[in-house]
Formats: sequence, structure tokens, C-alpha cells
Amino acid sequence: MPASYATGAAPSRIGWQLPPFYCPFERDLIHPKAAELEERAVAWIDGYGLYPDATERAWCLATRSADFTARIIPYGDVETMLLFTQWNYWAFAMDDRQDSGAASSRTATVADQGARLVRAVEAPGSGLLPPGPFTAALEDLVVRTREILTPVQLHRFTEGIRDWVFGSAWQAVYAQRGAMPSLNEYVAMRTSDNGTRFTLAWCNAANGIELPSRTLYSAPVQVLTEAAGLIVGCDNDVFSYNKDDHQEPLEENLINVLAQERGLGTSRALEEAVAFRDRLVGLFVALRDRVARDAGEELLRYLRSLEHWIAGDIEYHNRAPRYTSPRNRNALPVEGASYDITYRATPSDPRTGPLPVPALAWWWRQLEG
Amino acid sequence: MPASYATGAAPSRIGWQLPPFYCPFERDLIHPKAAELEERAVAWIDGYGLYPDATERAWCLATRSADFTARIIPYGDVETMLLFTQWNYWAFAMDDRQDSGAASSRTATVADQGARLVRAVEAPGSGLLPPGPFTAALEDLVVRTREILTPVQLHRFTEGIRDWVFGSAWQAVYAQRGAMPSLNEYVAMRTSDNGTRFTLAWCNAANGIELPSRTLYSAPVQVLTEAAGLIVGCDNDVFSYNKDDHQEPLEENLINVLAQERGLGTSRALEEAVAFRDRLVGLFVALRDRVARDAGEELLRYLRSLEHWIAGDIEYHNRAPRYTSPRNRNALPVEGASYDITYRATPSDPRTGPLPVPALAWWWRQLEG
Repeated sequence: MPASYATGAAPSRIGWQLPPFYCPFERDLIHPKAAELEERAVAWIDGYGLYPDATERAWCLATRSADFTARIIPYGDVETMLLFTQWNYWAFAMDDRQDSGAASSRTATVADQGARLVRAVEAPGSGLLPPGPFTAALEDLVVRTREILTPVQLHRFTEGIRDWVFGSAWQAVYAQRGAMPSLNEYVAMRTSDNGTRFTLAWCNAANGIELPSRTLYSAPVQVLTEAAGLIVGCDNDVFSYNKDDHQEPLEENLINVLAQERGLGTSRALEEAVAFRDRLVGLFVALRDRVARDAGEELLRYLRSLEHWIAGDIEYHNRAPRYTSPRNRNALPVEGASYDITYRATPSDPRTGPLPVPALAWWWRQLEG
Repeated sequence: MPASYATGAAPSRIGWQLPPFYCPFERDLIHPKAAELEERAVAWIDGYGLYPDATERAWCLATRSADFTARIIPYGDVETMLLFTQWNYWAFAMDDRQDSGAASSRTATVADQGARLVRAVEAPGSGLLPPGPFTAALEDLVVRTREILTPVQLHRFTEGIRDWVFGSAWQAVYAQRGAMPSLNEYVAMRTSDNGTRFTLAWCNAANGIELPSRTLYSAPVQVLTEAAGLIVGCDNDVFSYNKDDHQEPLEENLINVLAQERGLGTSRALEEAVAFRDRLVGLFVALRDRVARDAGEELLRYLRSLEHWIAGDIEYHNRAPRYTSPRNRNALPVEGASYDITYRATPSDPRTGPLPVPALAWWWRQLEG
């Protein structure tokens, strides 16, 4: 069970028993080297001294980035996965640091730091970041990343970082203005600030998938990529809700977006968030089947990797202490805490037509013709 | 001659006789359909009523975007060039509107509007922009762009828009803080806020060049792309100086950057800017020759298109009223005003070693091995 009640903190607005997940993909896969990944990644963190004290270190490890990698890439190359895992630990740490900036200049802070990060990868040795353990660790990641990836893989990875920065800066605009995005705005930014292309660049590299651009950037495959990213983003919002519910103004989270847009209480908004997300899964499955009919081996492997991401991400969130024993209610992460989620065989909303969101309209059009 | 003295405005700090340009590429090329391009593009602008009055319309036409297209793509497909030309008129108009935002929230404004623009192209029908003539014109551009470009070309174009937004947001951080970037920071952002990849996506499409990703994103070709972009950016800074010299704080311009970094007066900073830029041209030529040795036909055509861009951009700026009769000194653009520039056969700085700028260090390393 989640370690929610431990400190007498505020009660959860959505509760600790989440609605069952609709996930019609192979589940419970995990890479056999998961433990080795974690051990080696943690040694790397400790080697760079990324954290000032034992408490911060504990919360760093509570992100369980190695478990994330091992669950979403169950058959990947270990050295590539290790590098991805280290990137994730590093990125979580950076993200947590950024959250502490002044709200009135939040966008400038995110854009500035993000741009320097992008150039650190693209222009090695550019020296645009302040010296310190974070930058030293980053330089190590950059050197090894540029060694291990092909030029195309490297380009897709830098695209991924840029997309993440793009989404984070856009999200920061709302935080700075104290405004909640509309549902249409939310879906337009969520696949970016969720790091979709950052993650998938590594999944592809670790899985040895390098789709030709004309395939990867064809409209139906683009939509499948984004749909997977938005599904994962919605799931992340459900699992993160209790972790962020102390924030003022409220976190930019699908549940809060729906509550505002439709004038709902939080429990009802959670139901609608799940229904919304289940309809996205329905679209993903229908479009996947359509694309798979004419797909070659490499594209079929890519489609499978998207499924691994969606399914593995749920299982990851279900047991990562960052989410299951959130810091706003626990002095230290609680090992073994879990949401103990359940699954359902059918979507909570059986409708298959387009969701009434302009930014998603072209997704369903890929099913036509 | 430039129409500088017309209104008794402040004298120019760098003067109206620019130093001679080092441009060892074929010059004075222009597409035979230049006049047709302008006529059709202006009819399109008028059809959408992008401007509220005759004065604004005159300054819009003074950007001479059709001349720009015709000079940097002297042999391209006319319909593709028309679309690119319309994009440029539209982008200039948007850019001029954005400049009027409040400085304290400049980054948020740029990031927000930029993100909505990106999604307008990527997610057609997303409806994230306010209704009006600008959005109506944009929707027309988007529909036609998605029709005319292949999926790979479209992706590279959206990358180009994203890169432009990325650079503009980063630049806005400095404007917001009232700070001048260091030389290292300046070069790291300039190829992005200059719209390098936006422009080159259209050059490639109009020239019928579609390089494989493994070629386009190989390190030496990346460097040639960025070097061309930075050279064009430096030239733009020289031609734009008088247009922006009323701004407080001073414009983020190579001349002002060098003046601050090295404690120079403006005239001396101009000389150093030209020397800096000439050394970039030297690198470009050396690396181009090296890459050309093993290049196939398509890559050779790409290298040639970069030369067309650099050379055509100079000739364009030499006579576009936006620069030659700048608005801070003229009530209306002056037809026929020109900088009457001259050329030199050798670089003003003959040194060939790496410029002492960390963000550029990896450029010269492409000449090794």
C-alpha cells in the first residue's frame, strides 16, 4: 500500500486506491539486468557527489530510474540502458532543482538553463554551464553519449532534449502566470514536457531500432508516437497527483485541467481523466493495427517498443517510492510502498470516436482513407 | 547610398559605409522569376489584410522577402519559393509585433506564442492561436506547406521553426534581464535565433535536395550548416546595426557583444566583428573543401546551396529598404536606397586557427584527422 498516512499530512483529494488501468499490452516484463543497472548507476551518482546529504541521496534513488529503464526496455542493450538510466537520474535531479526558482521569472530560468543544456550536448566543450558536480556529471554523459550513438541517433536524442525544453518552457509560462491550461493547451504541450522524444530516442538506441526518417515522420507513425507519449503523460499525472497536491497554484495536471475546464470536483475529474486516457489507448490500438498491416520488421519492433513503454511505465510508477511515498508526506522514501494497482480488460469509456479536442483532431483522421 | 540622413536623426555609430565584404563564392545570382514572386506574395498579403494601414504595408514590403528568396535560391522551384516567401513576410510581421511586448515577461511571451505557432504547423487545426488575419494567413500557409512538402521535408521544416523559437526564447532571456550575452553565449544562440534551419529547410525543398539523415547530421555537415548560419547571422548584425541602434538596452548584436566583451568603442568593435566573421568564412571554405572530396552529387548541391545563401543574403541586405532606410530614421522606406557595399578578395584577418570561443572549438576539430 502507499505510504500516505505516515505523517498525518493532508488527506489525498483523489485517494490512494487508483482506478483500474486499461492496458491491453504485454505486462510485467523487466530486463534481467535491472539490479546491475541500478547498482552501476548509483555508483556513478555517488562518484560525482550529486547530492549534498543522505536525505537528498535517498530521494534521488527513490526515482528508481534504473527500474524505469528496465521495465520500458525489457530486451535492450545494457550499456546503452545504463547511459539512459544515468541521464534520467541526472534529469530528475535537475528538474527538482529548477522547481525552486522564482515564479515571476520561471520561463526565463527554464529557457536559459534548457538552452545551455541543449548546447552542452550539441556543441561539446561549449562551457555554458556553471562548474560543479552537476556539470561534471553532464560532461561525462555527453562524452559517452556522443561515443555510443550514431549521428542519426544522436540527432534524435538532441531533438528529444530540445522537445523537452520546449515543453518545459511552455509549461513554465502557465506557472509564471498562475494559470491552468485549457484541455486543448494541455494536450498540445504534454507530449513535449513529458520528454517523449528524449525517452524514445534512448529506447530506440537500446533496442537497436533506427527507423528511416520517412517512416518515423510519416503522419500515422508520428501520431502513434505522440499518442503513446500522451498516454504515458496522463498516467504520470494520475500517479503524481498526490505528490504535487500541496502546490499553490495547483499543478498543471490532467486532473486539475479537467476539474477547471468542466467545473468538476477532484474525484469526478479523476474518473474523466481515466476515461480520456482510455480513449487514447483505444485510438493507439486501432491505429497500431492499421499501421502494422503494411509495416516492415523494423517498424513492427518500434510499435512493440511503444507498448513496452506504456505498460512498463505503469508498473514502474506503481512501486517507485517517489510516487508511492511522496515527499510532501514522508520525511524519507518508504521502501516497498506500492499503489497495488489493478487492471481492467476493457476501457472505462467504450466510445471510439475522436475526443472533442482540436489539437487531437488530426490523430483520428489517420484512421480514415 | 543609404537613406540615413533624411530626417536629421541621430548619427550612426558605425557609419553608413560598411567595411568591404569577404565572400569567395559566386555572387549576383538571382532567380529569373523574382518579380513574379514579389507580385504574387504581395497579392497574398493584401488578400489577408495583414496590415492596418498604408504605412505598415510599406514597411512590410520593405522587408523585400521575395528578393531574399530569389537571391538565396537562384535556381529553385517557383511554387515552393513562393510559399517560403510568404512565410518570410508573415514571420517578419509577427516578429515586429512581438517586439512590442513588456520586457519583464518577454521570455514567457516568446515561448508561449512560439509554442502555439509550432503546434499550428505540427497539429493542423489545433486552434491555439487567436482568430484574426494573422492566424487566417497562417492556416493557409500551414495547409499548403503540409501539401507541398514530403514527410521528411515537413519534419525538417518543423525542426526549423522549433529551432527559431528556441533561439528567440533564449535571446529574450537577455532582453528580459537587460543583459548583453558574452561572445560564447552569443555564438551559441545566434544560429538558432537567426532561423538557420527554418531557411535551409525551404532552400532544400525548393532546390529538390533531400539529404539522408546520416549525411545531414554527420558532424562535419552539421558544422558547415551552423557555420553558414553564423556567418549570415554576423552579416545580418552588421546590416541591422543602424536599424536597431535606438534600443535601450542595446540590441544583442555581435558588434555590441564584442564592444562589451573587449571594452571597445563601436567602430573598433565593427572591425573585430568583420574579422571574426571572416575567420568563420575561412573555416567554412576549408571544411567545405574537405567534405567535398568524398561527397556525392546531392551533398555537393547542398554545399553549393549554403554558398548561395551566404552570398545572396549579403546582396539582399545591401538593398532592402528595411536595412538601407531604417525605420528609426525614416517615416517611410526609401526605394533605391543601398549600402553600395564593396568586396575584398582576402579575409581581413588572415589567421586560420580556431577562434578562441569554447562553443566553436569543435568546429575546427572537424578539420583534423
